[in-house]
Amino acid sequence: MGAHDDANTGPIDTAAVDTAHLEQLMLGRWAETRRTAREVLKDPQFHKVENLTKEDHRERTLKQSHALVDAKAVHRAFPKEFGGDNDHGANIAGFEELVTADPSLQIKSGVQWGLFGAAVLHLGSYEHQKQWLPGIMDLSVPGAYAMTEFGHGSDVASLGTTATYDPETQEFVINTPFAAATKRYLGNAALDATAAVVFAQLITNGVNHGVHCFYMEIRDSDGRVLPGITINDDGHKGGLNGVDNGQVSFDHVRVPRFNLLNRYGDVAEDGTYTSPIESPGRRFFTMLGTLVQGRVSLSGAAIAASKLALIGAVTYGNQRRQFNATSTTEEEVLLDYQLHQRRLIPRLAKTVALGFAQEKLLGKLDEVFSGKDDSDENRQELETLAAAVKAVATWHSLDTLQEAREACGGAGFISENRFTSLRADLDVYATFEGDNNVLLQLVAKRLLADYAAEFKNADVGALASYVANQAGDRVMHRFGLRRALQEVRDTGDERRSANWFKQTEVQRDLLAGRVRQMVVDVAGELRPVAKLPADKQAKVFNEHQFEIINTSKAHTDLLLWEALTEGLESIQDHGTRQVMTWLRDIYALTTIEETLDWYLGNGRISAQRARTLSPYINRLVARVRPHAQDIVDSFGYAPEHVRMEVASGAELKRQDEALEHYRKLRASSDAPLDEKTLLDRQRALAKSR
Amino acid sequence: MGAHDDANTGPIDTAAVDTAHLEQLMLGRWAETRRTAREVLKDPQFHKVENLTKEDHRERTLKQSHALVDAKAVHRAFPKEFGGDNDHGANIAGFEELVTADPSLQIKSGVQWGLFGAAVLHLGSYEHQKQWLPGIMDLSVPGAYAMTEFGHGSDVASLGTTATYDPETQEFVINTPFAAATKRYLGNAALDATAAVVFAQLITNGVNHGVHCFYMEIRDSDGRVLPGITINDDGHKGGLNGVDNGQVSFDHVRVPRFNLLNRYGDVAEDGTYTSPIESPGRRFFTMLGTLVQGRVSLSGAAIAASKLALIGAVTYGNQRRQFNATSTTEEEVLLDYQLHQRRLIPRLAKTVALGFAQEKLLGKLDEVFSGKDDSDENRQELETLAAAVKAVATWHSLDTLQEAREACGGAGFISENRFTSLRADLDVYATFEGDNNVLLQLVAKRLLADYAAEFKNADVGALASYVANQAGDRVMHRFGLRRALQEVRDTGDERRSANWFKQTEVQRDLLAGRVRQMVVDVAGELRPVAKLPADKQAKVFNEHQFEIINTSKAHTDLLLWEALTEGLESIQDHGTRQVMTWLRDIYALTTIEETLDWYLGNGRISAQRARTLSPYINRLVARVRPHAQDIVDSFGYAPEHVRMEVASGAELKRQDEALEHYRKLRASSDAPLDEKTLLDRQRALAKSR
Repeated sequence: MGAHDDANTGPIDTAAVDTAHLEQLMLGRWAETRRTAREVLKDPQFHKVENLTKEDHRERTLKQSHALVDAKAVHRAFPKEFGGDNDHGANIAGFEELVTADPSLQIKSGVQWGLFGAAVLHLGSYEHQKQWLPGIMDLSVPGAYAMTEFGHGSDVASLGTTATYDPETQEFVINTPFAAATKRYLGNAALDATAAVVFAQLITNGVNHGVHCFYMEIRDSDGRVLPGITINDDGHKGGLNGVDNGQVSFDHVRVPRFNLLNRYGDVAEDGTYTSPIESPGRRFFTMLGTLVQGRVSLSGAAIAASKLALIGAVTYGNQRRQFNATSTTEEEVLLDYQLHQRRLIPRLAKTVALGFAQEKLLGKLDEVFSGKDDSDENRQELETLAAAVKAVATWHSLDTLQEAREACGGAGFISENRFTSLRADLDVYATFEGDNNVLLQLVAKRLLADYAAEFKNADVGALASYVANQAGDRVMHRFGLRRALQEVRDTGDERRSANWFKQTEVQRDLLAGRVRQMVVDVAGELRPVAKLPADKQAKVFNEHQFEIINTSKAHTDLLLWEALTEGLESIQDHGTRQVMTWLRDIYALTTIEETLDWYLGNGRISAQRARTLSPYINRLVARVRPHAQDIVDSFGYAPEHVRMEVASGAELKRQDEALEHYRKLRASSDAPLDEKTLLDRQRALAKSR
Repeated sequence: MGAHDDANTGPIDTAAVDTAHLEQLMLGRWAETRRTAREVLKDPQFHKVENLTKEDHRERTLKQSHALVDAKAVHRAFPKEFGGDNDHGANIAGFEELVTADPSLQIKSGVQWGLFGAAVLHLGSYEHQKQWLPGIMDLSVPGAYAMTEFGHGSDVASLGTTATYDPETQEFVINTPFAAATKRYLGNAALDATAAVVFAQLITNGVNHGVHCFYMEIRDSDGRVLPGITINDDGHKGGLNGVDNGQVSFDHVRVPRFNLLNRYGDVAEDGTYTSPIESPGRRFFTMLGTLVQGRVSLSGAAIAASKLALIGAVTYGNQRRQFNATSTTEEEVLLDYQLHQRRLIPRLAKTVALGFAQEKLLGKLDEVFSGKDDSDENRQELETLAAAVKAVATWHSLDTLQEAREACGGAGFISENRFTSLRADLDVYATFEGDNNVLLQLVAKRLLADYAAEFKNADVGALASYVANQAGDRVMHRFGLRRALQEVRDTGDERRSANWFKQTEVQRDLLAGRVRQMVVDVAGELRPVAKLPADKQAKVFNEHQFEIINTSKAHTDLLLWEALTEGLESIQDHGTRQVMTWLRDIYALTTIEETLDWYLGNGRISAQRARTLSPYINRLVARVRPHAQDIVDSFGYAPEHVRMEVASGAELKRQDEALEHYRKLRASSDAPLDEKTLLDRQRALAKSR
């Protein structure tokens, strides 16, 4: 860690985080909503209690849900007419914070107001809203969101439940034709729900118009399940046991024609089907698209949980001591170990990057849902961005919670430190509201479509030159020529290498170049089969599935980098900006480090430069290390939100007491002599004789 | 997936797993013990029940522990004289299986017989054994293993608890001098233990002889905590809530001189200290070394849990269908998706490799503990191997359980499928009995010491030529020359590349070459500071900590590969051997793929070859895919051990019923027409007019 490169990485002396400034920036556009929500959630009545049976936890969560209504914490998305704020961005921002109290409460609320309520709001008519929203909003009608079945989760279009229109009685007959069509994992269903929105294949006049949504009562006011409906409990889960998930099946249950949530598809008295969207495919995706909020709120919650994890681990890492290293009397603070820095600081960087990406996502959601820009194009962008950020943020939270828990050793495993509890609850975020791998395939689909569209409009000359450049590159790469030249120039100059890596444009080129090349490569592999029959196409697609998923991940890497770079560019305070720039560099370079084989194999980084990357990252994490506490403090959470023994200062007190004990002992005449010291003295004495 | 490379990868037609043969091989040397243990554990009384409070779970686990005594399942390691088998390998083999019943039961038993009992057995005299082992073995004396403190876990040598000898009364005074010296996380301590083995600094005649172990009573026969002792409950944990972990502190509690477990250090009546091992450092490590069994049994348990996870996910992956791809009427089975193969099959390969490595580890443990070869050299080898395998196996189990749970979607989150439950329980395995990262540092220390020893004995000529070769290599690598030449030869020939990667010698060279080069590189970085003061050395060491840990990981990769290669070479059956060879290749090549940047950056693999690696792995996993079920079936677990709904065949039944429903519907006249089909027909009609 020579001084030689300090000049290249910025003025270490003036680097300092203005925590108030950074906090305001990270709270983002809906800072006030977040602050209000956090204030409400300081109340212990909302906090998760460990060691409850699922029965007791469910009871508590239901009570908490009612308390949220009383606190006016959950109506921001609803129309003003019904007592809401019609503020969609603020709604999600506030909702994200619930995870700090109890993820079960978040998910139970999400089911009630974000899914059940949102289905009525977005898929229903004004008449439907008027009839059902008040009861949904005040929780007098708890409801389930009956989409997923035993047999179909990710592939919603293939649900087995049917809703067949009977013009005789003007009713729909809701039916579960086989066991795999039984609804499953429905929050609120096992105990509390008296109603549900049920997704089923709409069949009228002998035609299946695809999946539509129906409002149904499922229990009477005494909590008895209605005739023709069977409900089972999903039982104990890996987490979120405050939510009463259940299984629901229907035996030819009749509901009035009115109960079809008919914004995107309606059935007339005589059974005639009409829809404002002609294409059944587009209609289906439009209906599902209104529910993108679920994904957006999950990613936001996952980021909040990652922040809590890092507050715990960084604080403890700054107080906990283990092993003597540079001193014989004072043990080393954990965060002074390089490995500890390497474990926590890149995760801190990615968490901050995700925070900025989430802010962009919220902005886009607000544009679409407020009607500011609800064009198809913008809706699609929202869907793609939400899919990418949700997948990466939820996985990242599991990874960060786990690393933080391990970084706190045994203490990390005790529930009072919440890492294991949060991790258990958030585990399912990786597969619900869209399995992460399926979401990444959606992202890839969009990337490939964009690429195809780009080519369609390119004139022949541009296309030719593009292809020629590609071919030229490939020949160069194949023979390793360009790289060999680069290596001669690079030889041994670590400073020049670091200077290169830290440049914003270099980082952008590397990350963006990778996405572009991967898309070109995949598209090239898939193009020859574009005209083959569907089964052959599917086979070739499948043979590149792994590559396709990696392309989406590369895209998300870039997306996060861009959000973080934009975020830091808005920072006025010089010292804060310096620290955040290092953090951004750490995000960029650890991301590149993880896929360094690609950069080497594709001649984007020379072997010489590649060898300097890891040591340079090691220096960067050491540079951010003194500011780590300030950064986590800037997340703006109060002790009532953190609630971890490791972050309480108790460890510092214990360490100080122990240090003081030994200090006094050394100064006294009672101190026992160490056997090793005794032996050394005896040996020295023997020698001197 | 062209046919062109089939010739290179073996005869696909004859590949078939003889499951009975493979099962016997994987059960290993202690197959009979494993079978006996598994038979006992079929009994539902031993199975984990979900949704218990920690109080109820603790009660159940204590009862189960007594039932294990009755079933004679836990005494294999103890001397025959006391009713044991004196069979150390068999003891761990049997113990590993407990995890299939309930990990809490495993850990509670591990504390009682593996730690508390083993301390008396290995650190005590014959008098101690005679006095205490019978009560320990029959569980009439439940005990705690009081090593870890609030302030010290990994660094046992620095424990704060003191045991000061008082020659007046011939007693030791056990004391907790400050809060951080309070014992913590002690299994059995919160409720059940009436005794404990307590680790404390032995001070006599004014000299501290380091950490020794003392047998103490901590509760009376009515369960009341004895005077001077304070016990608190560690509370709810992320898992293992059947174990009653507690905190214990001592206020000048006196124990008889006899209670020092004195095999490696004794105090005479007058306070004179004697030890058969002169060096305090070596003495300390010898005492701790007798407890290596804990690590060995944790890795074995982690491997067993990984096997359960894969049984669940592979079985479900073979039955669950989602999305139409190659057929319009039959959805795709999950395991036919490349990504799904990529997620599960490399983890299957690593699990099998770990199984063989564990078998070697057990063999070595048996050699040392049976006295067949308990040389210092062999003890050290055992310690290093145990550290490496424990770290990698426990992390691998968490990774595999998580991937398996996600691969089963929402079903993976329901406790009846056990993934989340096992994961929660096994989480702490990564940090207890030695934090994994600390263990990997031990491994690195040994690697560096071996390297130094090798050089010490090398004559000057050998040394010079070795160094010269190194230098030659480096110059070549720096200019990318050798690699460039290799690339020209490799150009575009995927078959030649696959032929190269599949060779046993090539894999060995790649994996072993990496370890060797990394050791040389690290040693080279550390050598210049070998003569600097300790604090400077520590600083430089710290600046390479990340690299050092990665070196240990590379070493373990090789070790697993060697164990798997040895294992498969003993297979007689041709078809089984073929499948296992592919599996070994998958282990080798995915391991290389993960660190491909190193191989590229160090000129070990050309960019051309590197580009063929991932597609080749994709073909290999597809080739093993039809055998995946046979491999997991060969783990030899019965339904009573697996106990997962996803592995019960229920999904297949549901899928078949749904397929049959649609088949009948298509054949009938009632089948509704799909709106898309209707639109297509209308368009065709319009056109034809």
